[in-house]
Amino acid sequence: MSNTNAIDILVCEVGLRDGLQNAGSAMPTPAKKAWISQAVKAGLREIEVCSFVPPKLVPGMEDAGEVVAYSLGLPNLEVAVLAPNLRGAEDAFRSRAHKITLPVSISDSHSRANVRKTRAEMIDEVRRVCELRDQLPDGYRPYIEAGLATAFGCTIEGRVSEIDVLATAVACVEAGCDEVGLSDTCGYANPAQVKALFKSTKAEVGDASKGVHLHNTLGLGLANAFAAIEAGATVLDSSLGGLGGCPFAPGASGNIVTEDLVYMLEAQGLKTGIDMDALLQCRDIVRSALPDEPLYGHVAEAGLPKGFRAKPERIG
Amino acid sequence: MSNTNAIDILVCEVGLRDGLQNAGSAMPTPAKKAWISQAVKAGLREIEVCSFVPPKLVPGMEDAGEVVAYSLGLPNLEVAVLAPNLRGAEDAFRSRAHKITLPVSISDSHSRANVRKTRAEMIDEVRRVCELRDQLPDGYRPYIEAGLATAFGCTIEGRVSEIDVLATAVACVEAGCDEVGLSDTCGYANPAQVKALFKSTKAEVGDASKGVHLHNTLGLGLANAFAAIEAGATVLDSSLGGLGGCPFAPGASGNIVTEDLVYMLEAQGLKTGIDMDALLQCRDIVRSALPDEPLYGHVAEAGLPKGFRAKPERIG
Repeated sequence: MSNTNAIDILVCEVGLRDGLQNAGSAMPTPAKKAWISQAVKAGLREIEVCSFVPPKLVPGMEDAGEVVAYSLGLPNLEVAVLAPNLRGAEDAFRSRAHKITLPVSISDSHSRANVRKTRAEMIDEVRRVCELRDQLPDGYRPYIEAGLATAFGCTIEGRVSEIDVLATAVACVEAGCDEVGLSDTCGYANPAQVKALFKSTKAEVGDASKGVHLHNTLGLGLANAFAAIEAGATVLDSSLGGLGGCPFAPGASGNIVTEDLVYMLEAQGLKTGIDMDALLQCRDIVRSALPDEPLYGHVAEAGLPKGFRAKPERIG
Repeated sequence: MSNTNAIDILVCEVGLRDGLQNAGSAMPTPAKKAWISQAVKAGLREIEVCSFVPPKLVPGMEDAGEVVAYSLGLPNLEVAVLAPNLRGAEDAFRSRAHKITLPVSISDSHSRANVRKTRAEMIDEVRRVCELRDQLPDGYRPYIEAGLATAFGCTIEGRVSEIDVLATAVACVEAGCDEVGLSDTCGYANPAQVKALFKSTKAEVGDASKGVHLHNTLGLGLANAFAAIEAGATVLDSSLGGLGGCPFAPGASGNIVTEDLVYMLEAQGLKTGIDMDALLQCRDIVRSALPDEPLYGHVAEAGLPKGFRAKPERIG
C-alpha cells in the first residue's frame, strides 16, 4: 500500500484470489505466475495473489506459498494475500507477504458462513493476528487490512447497519489494523451509499480508510467506484475480466473489471500507472489456462475510443 | 417533459426508437403497442416511441403514425418521437406527438453521415422546424428538443470541442428549442466529463438543459448517469434490456439498461414512479417479438437485493 507515489489511484488486482476462488477449476501454478508477471509489466503495483485457506475448504490455493515467493521476486509489487483467521495469518507470515487482508463481516450470518465466527469473535481474531505481527522478528512487519465484508448489505440479512460498519472499522483499527476496507461482498451497494459510507468511515478512522472492494453483480460496480473516488477513495480492488462471478447470479460478473476500471480512471485523467495494451494481454493468459471461465469487459469487447491514449507516460 | 410531478428523475424509454432502429429485424406493430402499454402500466411517463424517417433508410418505422396515435391514447404519457429533419418533423407534427427530438451532431463528420448536413446546416434546419411549430394551429405546440449527438466524442473525429458543444446548445435554444440534451452517441463519455459538461451546459442555457442520453459501450453508462445526476440532471434516457447495441461493438450493449438505471435510482432513494416488477415484464414482450435480439440487464439476471422494495409507493 506504500507504493503509490506518482499515481492518483492504486488499482489492486484481486482476480487471483477472489476470482480464482470462485472459478470452476484450478489454475495451474505456471499460469498464475505468468499472469502476475504480465500484470506487473503492465504497471500493476498491488496484487492479491492468493489466500491462505485450508485446501479442503477452498481448492486451488495449495500453491499459495510458492505463488507468494515468486511474486516477492518481482519489482515494484506489493504482494497481498488473504487469510481467514490466525492460522492462515501464520502461514501468510511465513510466506513473508507484504500485506494480509482479514475478512471481518458486518453481518453475523455471513461471518459465520464465511469464517465460522461472529463479527465480535472475528475482531478478537484480528487482534490476535496483529499482536503476533507485532512480535515478528527481523524487521518484517506486514501491513494488515481488515476487509469489512457485507458493508453495504448481505444476501442473508439484507440491510446492514451503518453504525455497525463504523463501529467495526474503529474496533479493527484499535485491534491493530493498518487499514480497513469497505467491501461490497454481495454487490448490493449503490453510489450514494458508497459515497456516504466511505465519508463516514474516513471521518471515524481517518487515513486508515483508503479504499473499497466492489462487485458488479447489479451492474453498479463502476458507478460505485466513481462515487468512492468522489468521496476520497484512493485504492480500488478489481479483477481481470471480472473474474469472481457470484454463484447466485449466473451471467452477472463478480468483481468490477480491472480493464474497464483502469479505462474509466485514465479517461478521467486519473493516473493509474497501468498500460492498457499490456493489461489486456493478461486476458490471453487467463483464457488459455481457464478456457471455460467467462471473461467480461467492455473495453476488451468494444475497443478503446478513437484518440484514447492507451499508454500512460512513464511515471513513478 | 412536463409530467414530472412527484418524481425525482424522469426516465425516458428510448428502446422503441434507438433500440429498434439498430435491431436485426423489425418489431411487429402489435408488439410495439403491447410494450408501450406495459411500460406505461409500470409507471414510465415518457417514451420515445418511433422516428419519422424514410422507410428506405431505416426500415421498421413504417408504422410510426399508428404507434404515435396508439400512444396518445394512453394515460400520463409524454409521447416523444425523433425526426432527422424538417420533412420528418412535418410528419411528426401531423402525428400530434407531444415531443420531437432533432439530432444535432457536434461532429460534422458524424452529422453528415447521420443526416447529410453539417452541424451549422442542421442548426438552420432546427430553426425552420421551430418556426413551423410556432405556426401550428389548434393550440398544438409540441415540445422540441435538440439532441446534441457526439457531445462526448465521436468514432470518426475522436475528441470533440467542449466549446462547440456549448455554442451548439446556445444556438439551438436561440433557434427555438425548448430543450437541449447531451447525447453520448458513441459511448465515449466518462463520469468526470459528464459532470463537467452538464454543469457547463446548464450554466449556458439554464433550464433548457435537463438531461443526458447515455450509451454503455465501454461499460461506464451507469457511472455516467450517476455523475449526470450529481451535476443536476433530472431526465435520463435508457433502453429496455440495453437494446440498441452498437454495430461496431459486438457484445457491448448500446443504451444504458432501463431496468438497471431504475434500480440504481430507487436504491439511492430517488423516485422514478416505476414499478420494477411491471417493468421487467416488458422484457417478455420484447423477447417474444424479437427472439434473436440480445437483452442485457444485471437486475434481470441477478435479481433484486434481499429487502429491496420493488414497488414504489403510489405517487403522482
